[in-house]
Amino acid sequence: MTSTTGTIESTNKEKMGEDLYRLIERLYPICRSITGNGVRETLDIIKEYLSLEVNEVPTGTQVFDWTVPDEWNIKDAYIKNEKGEKIVDFKKLNLHVLNYSIPVNETMDLETLKAHLFTIPEYPDWIPYRTSYHNKNWGFCISHNQLLRLKDGSYEVKIDSTLQPGSLTYGEHLIKGSSSEEVIISCHVCHPSLCNDNLSGIAVATFLARELEKLHLKYSYRFLFIPGTIGSITWLSLNEDKIKNIRHGIVLTLLGDKTKFHYKKSRRGDAEIDRIILRQLKNKFTDFGIIDFYPYGYDERQFCSPGFNLPVGRLSRKPHGEFPEYHTSADNLDFVKPEHLSESLDLLLSIIRELESSEKYLNLSPKCEPQLGKRGLFKQIGGQSETNDYQMALLWILNLSDGEHSLQDIEEKSRLNVAILRDAAEALCKVNLLKKI
Amino acid sequence: MTSTTGTIESTNKEKMGEDLYRLIERLYPICRSITGNGVRETLDIIKEYLSLEVNEVPTGTQVFDWTVPDEWNIKDAYIKNEKGEKIVDFKKLNLHVLNYSIPVNETMDLETLKAHLFTIPEYPDWIPYRTSYHNKNWGFCISHNQLLRLKDGSYEVKIDSTLQPGSLTYGEHLIKGSSSEEVIISCHVCHPSLCNDNLSGIAVATFLARELEKLHLKYSYRFLFIPGTIGSITWLSLNEDKIKNIRHGIVLTLLGDKTKFHYKKSRRGDAEIDRIILRQLKNKFTDFGIIDFYPYGYDERQFCSPGFNLPVGRLSRKPHGEFPEYHTSADNLDFVKPEHLSESLDLLLSIIRELESSEKYLNLSPKCEPQLGKRGLFKQIGGQSETNDYQMALLWILNLSDGEHSLQDIEEKSRLNVAILRDAAEALCKVNLLKKI
Amino acid sequence: MTSTTGTIESTNKEKMGEDLYRLIERLYPICRSITGNGVRETLDIIKEYLSLEVNEVPTGTQVFDWTVPDEWNIKDAYIKNEKGEKIVDFKKLNLHVLNYSIPVNETMDLETLKAHLFTIPEYPDWIPYRTSYHNKNWGFCISHNQLLRLKDGSYEVKIDSTLQPGSLTYGEHLIKGSSSEEVIISCHVCHPSLCNDNLSGIAVATFLARELEKLHLKYSYRFLFIPGTIGSITWLSLNEDKIKNIRHGIVLTLLGDKTKFHYKKSRRGDAEIDRIILRQLKNKFTDFGIIDFYPYGYDERQFCSPGFNLPVGRLSRKPHGEFPEYHTSADNLDFVKPEHLSESLDLLLSIIRELESSEKYLNLSPKCEPQLGKRGLFKQIGGQSETNDYQMALLWILNLSDGEHSLQDIEEKSRLNVAILRDAAEALCKVNLLKKI
Repeated sequence: MTSTTGTIESTNKEKMGEDLYRLIERLYPICRSITGNGVRETLDIIKEYLSLEVNEVPTGTQVFDWTVPDEWNIKDAYIKNEKGEKIVDFKKLNLHVLNYSIPVNETMDLETLKAHLFTIPEYPDWIPYRTSYHNKNWGFCISHNQLLRLKDGSYEVKIDSTLQPGSLTYGEHLIKGSSSEEVIISCHVCHPSLCNDNLSGIAVATFLARELEKLHLKYSYRFLFIPGTIGSITWLSLNEDKIKNIRHGIVLTLLGDKTKFHYKKSRRGDAEIDRIILRQLKNKFTDFGIIDFYPYGYDERQFCSPGFNLPVGRLSRKPHGEFPEYHTSADNLDFVKPEHLSESLDLLLSIIRELESSEKYLNLSPKCEPQLGKRGLFKQIGGQSETNDYQMALLWILNLSDGEHSLQDIEEKSRLNVAILRDAAEALCKVNLLKKI
Repeated sequence: MTSTTGTIESTNKEKMGEDLYRLIERLYPICRSITGNGVRETLDIIKEYLSLEVNEVPTGTQVFDWTVPDEWNIKDAYIKNEKGEKIVDFKKLNLHVLNYSIPVNETMDLETLKAHLFTIPEYPDWIPYRTSYHNKNWGFCISHNQLLRLKDGSYEVKIDSTLQPGSLTYGEHLIKGSSSEEVIISCHVCHPSLCNDNLSGIAVATFLARELEKLHLKYSYRFLFIPGTIGSITWLSLNEDKIKNIRHGIVLTLLGDKTKFHYKKSRRGDAEIDRIILRQLKNKFTDFGIIDFYPYGYDERQFCSPGFNLPVGRLSRKPHGEFPEYHTSADNLDFVKPEHLSESLDLLLSIIRELESSEKYLNLSPKCEPQLGKRGLFKQIGGQSETNDYQMALLWILNLSDGEHSLQDIEEKSRLNVAILRDAAEALCKVNLLKKI
Repeated sequence: MTSTTGTIESTNKEKMGEDLYRLIERLYPICRSITGNGVRETLDIIKEYLSLEVNEVPTGTQVFDWTVPDEWNIKDAYIKNEKGEKIVDFKKLNLHVLNYSIPVNETMDLETLKAHLFTIPEYPDWIPYRTSYHNKNWGFCISHNQLLRLKDGSYEVKIDSTLQPGSLTYGEHLIKGSSSEEVIISCHVCHPSLCNDNLSGIAVATFLARELEKLHLKYSYRFLFIPGTIGSITWLSLNEDKIKNIRHGIVLTLLGDKTKFHYKKSRRGDAEIDRIILRQLKNKFTDFGIIDFYPYGYDERQFCSPGFNLPVGRLSRKPHGEFPEYHTSADNLDFVKPEHLSESLDLLLSIIRELESSEKYLNLSPKCEPQLGKRGLFKQIGGQSETNDYQMALLWILNLSDGEHSLQDIEEKSRLNVAILRDAAEALCKVNLLKKI
């Protein structure tokens, strides 16, 4: 990882925030689901930014305990009142349709209709996002105020959807590093018009990949743009051979709002990625949240299932589910901001910088200190009480490079800046007192 | 363990308290010691409540480093003054005799007598309880005020006791569970008229056994009604073959007073019984004491000797020895109360409930989450932020049932109620996603 | 270690302080360096107190990454002004010469001279101690005030030194204990007229050795009087066969000032010597400092290099380098005091007392408690709530002497005095219930 490109300069940050936001704006209107053309359109737009391998996994494919479902597509949906006025219109907001609704074309009275209407009484102006992937159903999501205003009468209900054999679509982008060891960066692409939950993760992952492509990397980075749950299950099921190479992973979502960062640890709880993200948050912020692993949330659930127990955590701003806008029409383009998106990206670049620089060295002269002076690495006049940080860095690295301590461990123990430690390590490598392992 | 009988309803609690107290009242007058008819009478009364295997171990039996002593019995004892008045009378309070006193029938002056009188100067109205099991001696325990009032003159001293070959008597009651793994519940039966120290443990153990007999149990429960020290040493010595089956154990004593509970940990310090009792105390009480193991106190000393190091802790209210009434006539029928006894029993039932429910499961579909929805185990409409506890319980159990975590470990990690976790585990077993191990 | 000689009586303490101080006074004028006659003279004086094996390691000997340097000796050095007055005179204070200065005999102007003058601007009256062991150079150390007063003109500069093949000299004194396991006590002998840094360590080590010689010891004690850095490297390099026997070690320095004690832990951080010194400091002082290992300071750096990682800590009063007098003319005979020196020696004797007494026992009757009463080791009248410390000591030792716990571990767990524990252990050994392991 070249040191010049790892952080975003402040002028770039502003532009980066706008770029991230613009991608969200483009993706916002699309009606995504766990299968169907919405995912394909989404991946097509991402492909303008990033080469993607798009995979289609046929309906009926067995993926562990699950089966890839029928593909869902939708053209239109509405409810018309007796006057023929569209009182609910999918084309105005795709959240209005219960995601994965089977087709319907009926006229019914209010009582019958009501069993298929979903609202949020606590936030009577907002429209909820609801799904019924695995249970055949149809429905509409509307504001609670609208529900209260609905009058008795007959309603024409139309959902022009299809649910039939097709495939599950996901995108994958691999950046090869010098090692075959992999870092998984995963985001979900199955939510319709929801900005923070889904689109912020997609946008940040896309631009993170673009930034990483500019760098010389040690690890290989595998970006997964997958439908939630069934997507990660599908990927893990079809890629069991790749799992042994996964060294670290981060699930990205909820990265565009103004909340402080929240990191949910991997199930292991003390994986290197956990320690690194904790360190980065401590370095950069006075306030942030650390959440112990729990088996709910996003795709970290699958990566951290006991049969895999991968070192995969989740980075978010808002914590999952704990904000009223979650899965409602209020998670819209106003809810995410360019500056929060670019700050999230910036943090991820710092995390990856540390991950990339998490190097171990071996002291090749481990018995007593080697003579640094004769190699021009130590001050010439002895006796002063002060020793500068660089000289202490040389000593710390030599003392702790026993195969058990990474440069970051040395950083924590020595309280020296990692940059000076890395410089010192490089100098020691040059004079053959140290080698990278 | 059937769930209906594990706790005592409040009406039963009152009755239970009275039953416990009544047993103490019946046992109180008996002059117990480490051997002799006092123990036999005590066990006979317990047998009205509980079938007991009564064992007689002959005097002279070698039990590890010890030898079963001569059996001690006593009919009467008194001190008469010159007027022939009984100024100290064993028949009024058996504490008056130094326990294990050899027979004596002499007239002596006050000076000679005084060497055989024991008092508590700090509590001048109380009569101490003193013993001389292993050193042949005789003596009387009286109040310090009485000692001060004694006038010079000659005293007739009579102890009508016998100390001769016989046996050490103890009672044992085994409740067989489905497993041969055992829980030891031990109390001492060697103290004469002392209520909290001795009788409270006996009463609570007796009624605990009665309650457990009503249940279907996983573990087998072995109740020991044994004289302190020599009794547990004798039992351990004669039952070394059974020791490998002991999984948990609790020594019971000092359970009738109003003090907060004190749990003395096993020597291991983190045995499952230690964790369970700690959890139960935390759940039920805001204030309680936890005492690290130390090699003094009651029979936990023997169970936790380094050659056994069994996972046996001690449950008490008052801490051992740290209250003025300890081993005095003030530890009488007023010192223990029905409600404290029944609360102690209730706590023990909760502890055993947790012990019984400390089960482990294995996720049979450990790679990714299994599809709960298709098995009717998950909500049908997706998208809501709330997930109910039952659904979280399903996920936690699947995630942590890797062979390393018990249901109670999962309870601690998930902060879900163990009942809901058990229900969830059962449901998962039914659909073959989980099996008990 | 016989118990009568382990501590110094208060009258002796005063005399001991004076003896320690007198040795420092004698050693103070000598111009020591890492090689040369100054070290030999120093060792000759120590030999009046202690038999020493003096080793000469020839210039050019390869010791790990280092080479034994040319030997440095100096007869005289001065700077004369134009009037022929000696304005700087090595004979008045040997710190005036940059240690390891090559010979020089020149007249030069002030500007040229100034490049070879070293001062401490922050402490303008003090003369610094500076060295140039590995880079050929010459120089003078003077007070900053003198530097400011120097007038333009020509100066005669003379350093009558030699730097030529010879040897590195160090002294070694081995006190054989009953075991071949060794404790290393190391101090540096390379600093010229500096009292706290160097001479206090030498004096305390010398008298510590004298005290230990009077005792029957379990461990063997190897005292090293070695030049800093190159001396310990040389010793380790030439004695790799002895390293496997080293069980503990302490580097001694800065032991004559009035500051509270500071212990710098070994790199291991929890070696027995670390625990023992921590315990001793806690026992004896309310205020003291504990410093985590860092790879700078004194010869602990070499003993704790990763190729050895020996359990060697450092005991000092002042912390290394963190006081203005460090490496200046102010570290003189006024800076160290007899009472601080003798207190340091006393602490070391206590540390070694604990090290020597860090014994383990094995309970030979580990199943249940043995019957102490029949062996006269337990009170005869039972029932009292108090148990005295001695009886608790017997129980604690029996309970924890399982091969895993030392007497000191038992001390920490039981909070009983180690003396009473040792008495109890001895009593148990006598009756064959315990054996030393």
